Formats: sequence, structure tokens, C-alpha cells
Amino acid sequence: MVVNAAGRSVPVEVNGQSAIPYKGVGKHRPEGNKYGPPISTCIDFPADGTKLVPGLKEALLKAGLKNGMTISTHHHFRNGDLIANQIFDIASSLGIRDLVWFPSASFDCHAPLIKYLEDGTIHHIEGSMNGQLGRFTSEGKMQGVGVLRSHGGRYQAVQDGEVKIDIAVIASPTADSFGNANGLDGPAACGLLGFALADSQYASKVIIVTDHLVPFPCWPWQIQGNYVDYVVEVEQVGIPEKIVSGTTTITKSPDRLFLAELTSKFCEAAGIIQDGFSFQAGAGGTALSIGIYFAEMLKAKGMKSRFARGGSNTYLVQMLEDGLVDFILDGQTFDLEGVRSMRENAGHVDTSPFTSYNYHSKGNFAQLVDVVILGATEVDVQFNANVVTHSDGVLLHGIGGWQNCLFAKCTILPIPLFRDRIPVIREEVTTLCGPGELIDVIVTERGIAINPLRKDLLDKVKGSGLPIKTIRELKEEAEKICGVPQAIKFEEEIVAVVKWVDGTILDSIRKVALR
Amino acid sequence: MVVNAAGRSVPVEVNGQSAIPYKGVGKHRPEGNKYGPPISTCIDFPADGTKLVPGLKEALLKAGLKNGMTISTHHHFRNGDLIANQIFDIASSLGIRDLVWFPSASFDCHAPLIKYLEDGTIHHIEGSMNGQLGRFTSEGKMQGVGVLRSHGGRYQAVQDGEVKIDIAVIASPTADSFGNANGLDGPAACGLLGFALADSQYASKVIIVTDHLVPFPCWPWQIQGNYVDYVVEVEQVGIPEKIVSGTTTITKSPDRLFLAELTSKFCEAAGIIQDGFSFQAGAGGTALSIGIYFAEMLKAKGMKSRFARGGSNTYLVQMLEDGLVDFILDGQTFDLEGVRSMRENAGHVDTSPFTSYNYHSKGNFAQLVDVVILGATEVDVQFNANVVTHSDGVLLHGIGGWQNCLFAKCTILPIPLFRDRIPVIREEVTTLCGPGELIDVIVTERGIAINPLRKDLLDKVKGSGLPIKTIRELKEEAEKICGVPQAIKFEEEIVAVVKWVDGTILDSIRKVALR
Repeated sequence: MVVNAAGRSVPVEVNGQSAIPYKGVGKHRPEGNKYGPPISTCIDFPADGTKLVPGLKEALLKAGLKNGMTISTHHHFRNGDLIANQIFDIASSLGIRDLVWFPSASFDCHAPLIKYLEDGTIHHIEGSMNGQLGRFTSEGKMQGVGVLRSHGGRYQAVQDGEVKIDIAVIASPTADSFGNANGLDGPAACGLLGFALADSQYASKVIIVTDHLVPFPCWPWQIQGNYVDYVVEVEQVGIPEKIVSGTTTITKSPDRLFLAELTSKFCEAAGIIQDGFSFQAGAGGTALSIGIYFAEMLKAKGMKSRFARGGSNTYLVQMLEDGLVDFILDGQTFDLEGVRSMRENAGHVDTSPFTSYNYHSKGNFAQLVDVVILGATEVDVQFNANVVTHSDGVLLHGIGGWQNCLFAKCTILPIPLFRDRIPVIREEVTTLCGPGELIDVIVTERGIAINPLRKDLLDKVKGSGLPIKTIRELKEEAEKICGVPQAIKFEEEIVAVVKWVDGTILDSIRKVALR
Repeated sequence: MVVNAAGRSVPVEVNGQSAIPYKGVGKHRPEGNKYGPPISTCIDFPADGTKLVPGLKEALLKAGLKNGMTISTHHHFRNGDLIANQIFDIASSLGIRDLVWFPSASFDCHAPLIKYLEDGTIHHIEGSMNGQLGRFTSEGKMQGVGVLRSHGGRYQAVQDGEVKIDIAVIASPTADSFGNANGLDGPAACGLLGFALADSQYASKVIIVTDHLVPFPCWPWQIQGNYVDYVVEVEQVGIPEKIVSGTTTITKSPDRLFLAELTSKFCEAAGIIQDGFSFQAGAGGTALSIGIYFAEMLKAKGMKSRFARGGSNTYLVQMLEDGLVDFILDGQTFDLEGVRSMRENAGHVDTSPFTSYNYHSKGNFAQLVDVVILGATEVDVQFNANVVTHSDGVLLHGIGGWQNCLFAKCTILPIPLFRDRIPVIREEVTTLCGPGELIDVIVTERGIAINPLRKDLLDKVKGSGLPIKTIRELKEEAEKICGVPQAIKFEEEIVAVVKWVDGTILDSIRKVALR
């Protein structure tokens, strides 16, 4: 263990691989070259291009499934994914052990995998451990150490060869027998497949699983068949209605809508709402509902936004179709209106963690965004924020694109001052996910705190009438109402680590003391 | 020198790099991993994503231009390219020497580079050496050995790390300041930029040069800004009218149209023209005009083609717009109607040498095509064909996608029996570009020869009334009229090599004896 540049105690080895402690924002300079997967040859593929095999089990066997392999999946179906569990059912039936599951995110629908974590079929998960999988991990029950990465960090890790995917299984709403695939059409249309891009490019073996096989060419080819080894047709790949899950619906709570409205007023006062400006709202009801207010402001001013970064939802689609935004640059569709729009609107563009988030790149889209609105489970007086653990210390969320979005020109976290009578603003976050220097504004129902580093923003909102306070003032208000929260009891054991966008270790998550 | 599997004498070292002799179709199995270019980091790129530098010279200097580097360009402007020459003007003015030029193809407009080949600014060219550059090479005046590759072979060489591009300069009809670029819009619209894909993905430094800068996002991003280091705005990048050059216009010659018609009749008799069939016609007036006849047949039969692979031209676009073909999978637009169609028609899709031609891949599009119609400068009695040298031994053409297309299900070469009173069918081709086992049918004005390996085709056209002959019969007919051509005199010196699609050396091209 060492203490990293954020003052956090982190391991120098994770699951037997050496790890680099976080050095500060923009301080770790990568060395060497990108990973190159094995060179393929057309000799090994059918002359007529048809890569169909009879079932997922056959495909996994042909791909050489064996103990210790790293198996990847994507999460575009969110809680409606029907394929990931099947992979491990098959592996278990074959007596395969010690697999690493490398999903782009996990959901409650993946809770059945707990039995495979218990029986050793799966050694550990590299990816978000939400809900029941998070609690299982927090209780120290996973054999290996969980590795939490942002969407961009996942691309970076694959690109740089930190994670070598042996077999990628890409559930695809539409595909042809050559392996070209997209998420636009078919009964389980989910919009796009960008989270599986790295997997297709860098995995040694790539399996497409689809329930909607079309004649070549399947166009657009969001996943390119030239990267694909096998294609499997199944009855159903996903439940599109379940794409709409907890964090992707607009809030109906008047308190949360007030936060969103106050956030939009701040943006106006700070001069962010300009003709041609750009914005992104992360998952979480409060953040997502910001579009409602931005739309009203743009209409009133006769302006439009050049681009909005998605997760797309009904409100963002409405803005696009009303001509209030030129482009939605979408990383994942958050509802079925998003899916429809991506299919129908030329300005609704699918993106990937490569274009949008990868930090080991020649720039990315996230940094171009004028303002990003994100959620957090906790914020501390240094503006550091947490998105993965709750204030009881239990791992319950993934990082998503959250870390990557912090590089926008202005990062705003609208958060309630307390949740379930537990203050959200803390002396120190339980888990550090985002360094305070990248977080510019905290909007609460009782006032707005601006990071002192952003003197420009402080100047701009002077005289605006907005309730500007210091972060300590907000913390004290919360504590006046709820009291000072008790410290969480952790054990020594590290159950997961949080990686920063550059692959270094930002923080450790420890086992929660059993009650 | 060794004798390879095709019986050709080839060097085991080319320009100081060891080379693998051709082993036969599907015999060379690549080892190892794909090349990984250096890992980049956002630390080194402007926070606002703007990569503009004031000029090409500045960009080349920032990219670290120095002696011995490999500099790549693309040929989507064909004979209207205005950028490649400027690069070497700048290099020369800086006193840089021994550069390797790695274009995806060269044209007459690049003849001014001969002075830099003479003065040592450019050491040699890896890529097609057409026209004046070809003659210069054939006369033994280039310092290094020319390396001729197919479009797919060029992608393969870059992907596999056989050619490491130091600086890629990508002339782009439209781009944004982040480096996203396409060929669809702007005053010099050329359709697509697929030939520059490998360059963008694998070069150490990538420079976009454009005369039409648009606000972020430039969409579609045929070239992704995440691969781009610098963006340069100039007055003009290319002359779109000159996209239409020699080999890309439909023939008006009645003799050539007869060949095209006979070819289409053969396809019909052989049962190739079916509902949902696919075809590709390569560059060359005869091949390109095949679309006229296919369109008539499809209309008459009430059928349509699933896809046609481009080079797109007016006739192919007409078929798409008449509903006679679902998709044009286009690798380069051969005229401005192709450019317009790619911009306007959802079914007119841009492809790349990666999707279409790369042999070190998990299959490619070329092999899925039912019938491909290609040109040749010579064919021999073993059905071997030549596309790079003329019968006087002078290097005058590049390989293009020709080698890659041979993997189609049926390859037909419609060729005149003689050109300028020199027989086209020879005892042995001057330069071997395509092994005879992949060439199925030769169509001439005096008869059709079917490769004896294709017993299925011989059976199908029995009783069709088509003038089926043996290739020796065709050769003898030509020689009766023109006499037996004299052997060409070559010197020992090797001036260029022809690579096969798998990176092995298929043949050598020797210096022509000066007359």
C-alpha cells in the first residue's frame, strides 16, 4: 500500500498485476505503444463470409473458452440484458473456473451471477458493481478485487493492453452473418453499441449474438464484421423496455426539479447559455431534467445549442426535433424515444468511449462540452466527489462516464443537501471518484457553492441574486438539520479499487464491517 | 534472390527490410500481433480541442519532420490532389532528405516529385507508380526499390507494422478544428476518405489539411479527430473535377462496349444474375460500363442486386436511385455523381480498405461479391494476370484494389485480344500481379476462355451459344493477326516489387534496358 497524490491509501498490486498510484490530474504520462491484438488472416474464415455457428455454447467453445479467461459484455440493454448470464451458465456447465467478467456495466438483472462468484466460476468483476453485486463485493465475498473504471478508462485499459479481452460477447439487436451489427433495428433495438467498440477492436475472439439476422450488409455497421469471429442467432437478446432503468428517467420530485431549475439559472447567470453552446447531462433524474429548462431558455432567447452529449432521452430528442440543438452526440440511449430518434434523425449520432471519453487519446469530446451536469452520492469540502459508494460505505454504483465528463469546461453537481437525513456534503468523501479541482459548482436546494479555483465563475454571478455560499456553509446547514454523520466502520481488506481516467489508482474501497 | 511459389525470382530483402517470398494463395500464415502506435494522452492536446496550426509547414515541424521519415497521403482527389507535392516542397526547403513517400496511389499530378526523387529529398515510393513516376522508376532512377501493394495490402502492411507511418497528411474536403473530417462537403468534395483510414489509426502523427472548416462536430467523421494531432486550413485542397481521370470514365468505344455486353451475357448464362446478387466493376472503361448491361437485365427480370461495390460512377448511382441495387458499398467515388449520391443517399455507404480488402482480417467484403469485372494489361495461358506493367515492361499503373477483388466468387477480365497490335494474352505475363487460380474467366472480342479449374462454370454455359474457347486458342488467334511479340529486354537491377495481399513478394520488376 502507498499513499497516492490524493492522499488515499492504495495498493501497488491488484489481482496480481502491478498498479500505478494516482499522481494528480494530468500528471501521469503513459509510455509505450497501444496493444495490438493477434493478427488474423482470411485463411481462417469462410470464403463466403458466413460466420454463423449454431449456438452460444458452440461459439464459446470455438473461441477456446478456458479457465482464467477474461470475458467481456456491454450494457446497452441496461437492466434488460439477457446474454451475460447465459455465458456464465454455459461456462459453469462446462466446469470452467476463475473467469474475469469485464462488463461495461452491470445491473440488477446480473444478480444471478453471484452464485458463480461464490462457486469460483467467476473470479472477479472488472466493471461497475451495482446493486446486489455491489453489496456482495462490499461484504468481501468476491475472490478477487473489483476494478472500477469510467467508460473512458475502460477503453483506455483495453487500448493500452492493461486488460486483454480473450472473448468479447456482443449482444446485437441487428446483425448479418458476416458480423456487422447495430442497435438500431430489430425487436430489441437499443440504439447503439458503442460500449462494445473496444471489445470488437481488441479482443482476441469476438462473438456477435443476435435475434434479428439480416442479409449482408447490415448497415450501419456500428460493430464491424471484420473484427468478428462468430455469429450466433438466438431467440431474444434483450428486453428493450428495461433499457429505461432507475437512473435514466426524469425526476418528478418538485425538490429535484427545483435543483435542476436553479442549475439552469446558474448557467444563464454565468453566461454559459449562448448561441452554439454545448451541454451534457449525466444519468440521474435531476441531471437529466436539466434539458427541460435549457429548452425553455433557448426558445426564449431564439438561440440554439450546437450539440448535446447524451445519454439521450425523450426531452433531448424533443430539443433536436424542435431545432433547439443541431446534434445529439449519443453514448447510450436512455429510453426508447432515444432509440427511435437515433434511427430516424441524421443529427442523432452514435458515439463511443473512444470518441467521447478516452484520456489516452488526442483529445476527446467530453472536454469540448461547455457545461456538464452530473450526480454524486457525496461531495466534500474540497469539492471532491463520490459516485460509487453510499454514505454507509456500500458499493452500489458504477462510475459510468462521470469521471470523463469532469473535463468539460464547467462541471456542475446539483445535489440535495441531505438524503434520508444523511448530509451529502462531507468533511471527506467516503470514496474519491473525482478530484475537487475538476468540480466547479455544487448546486443544492439551499444554495450554490462555487469552487474557489473558479474565480471567473464567482465574478460572473456577482450581483445575480443567486444564493451563492461557501461549501463549508452548505455543509454546516446540512449538519444543523441532520447532525454530523457517524464515521463508517470498514475492515482492512480492500474489495475494490477506483481507477482514474489515466489508469492509475485513485482510491480503494474496503470491506464494510458486518453489522 | 529466391524463386517463390509462383516461380518468380524475388529478393529476400527490400530497402533493407527482410521480405517473405510468396508461398501460394492462402499459404502464408501471419504471426504475432498487430502494430500498436504510441499511446497518446490528452495532457498533450489543447483543453478546448482546437488543434489548428497556421500552416502545413508549421504542422510538419510540430510533427517532428526529419530525415528518413515515412510520410503518407491518400489519393481520393486522384489527379486533382494539391497537397502531396506541397509536403515535399516544404521538406526540400527545410533540407530534409531520404523520405519515404507512402501514398495510397499516385497520379500524373505528382510528376513534379521526380525532382525530389532525383535530389534525394525522397528516397523511394511505397505505393503505385503511375505514368511519369512509373517510367522514372522503370528506368532505374529511383534510389530505393518501389513497393507496389494493393489497397488491402497497404492496410495490411500498416496494421501489421510492416510500414510505420511517421506523419500522415490527410487532405480533407471538410473538417472541424478537432480533426474530424469527411469528403462529403466543401468545395473539393471527393466523397470519402477511406484510403486514409489506416493512416489515421496507425500513424504516429496525423495532420488534417482542409479548405472547408466547419464548427465541431464535422459529421460524418469519416476520419476521427481523436486520431488527429494538427489541423491546417489552406485555400484549396483539391480539384474535384480532376477526380474523373483516365481509368474512371465509361468507355464510348463500340469494341469495348461489345466486351462489356458479352461479359454480362456470360454472367447471365452462368446463372450469376439472380435476385439479390452482388457485383463490383473495377477501374477501366470496359469494366465500369458493365453496369449499363446489368441494369437492363435486372429491369427486364424484375430483380434487384443486394449490393454493388464501387468505385461509384453515374451509372451505379442511377441503379441505386432506380431501386435496382439496395446498397453501393463504395471505396472511392469515380465521378461527381458518386460524390453527390454518397452525400444524399442513405444506401450509398463509404467503406475502407479495412472493411473491403484487408486480408489479415476476419474476412473482408471483396470475398462476398458474386462477380467482379476487372481490367488487365496482360493475361497468360495459366490465367495469371498483370496490371502494373505494359508489354514494353514499363511500370505504368498501380495495383489498386485489383488483387483484393480476385477473391470474389467469380472474377472476369474482359480484355481486348490485342492493343496497338500487341497481343494481350501471352505465354507468360511480364509481371505477375494475380495468380491464375483466382482468375476465372477471360472475355475477349473473339471468344471467352474459362479457367479449367472452374468446371462448374464450364458446365453452366454449355449450350448457351456463347463463343467459349481455350485460352491457348485465344492466344493463337491474336498471334495469327499480330505475330508473336518479341521478348522485352530487362537489366538485372530490381526497381520495384509487387506484394501479394498477405505481404509476401509475388514478383519483381526490373529496370528496362535503355533504347
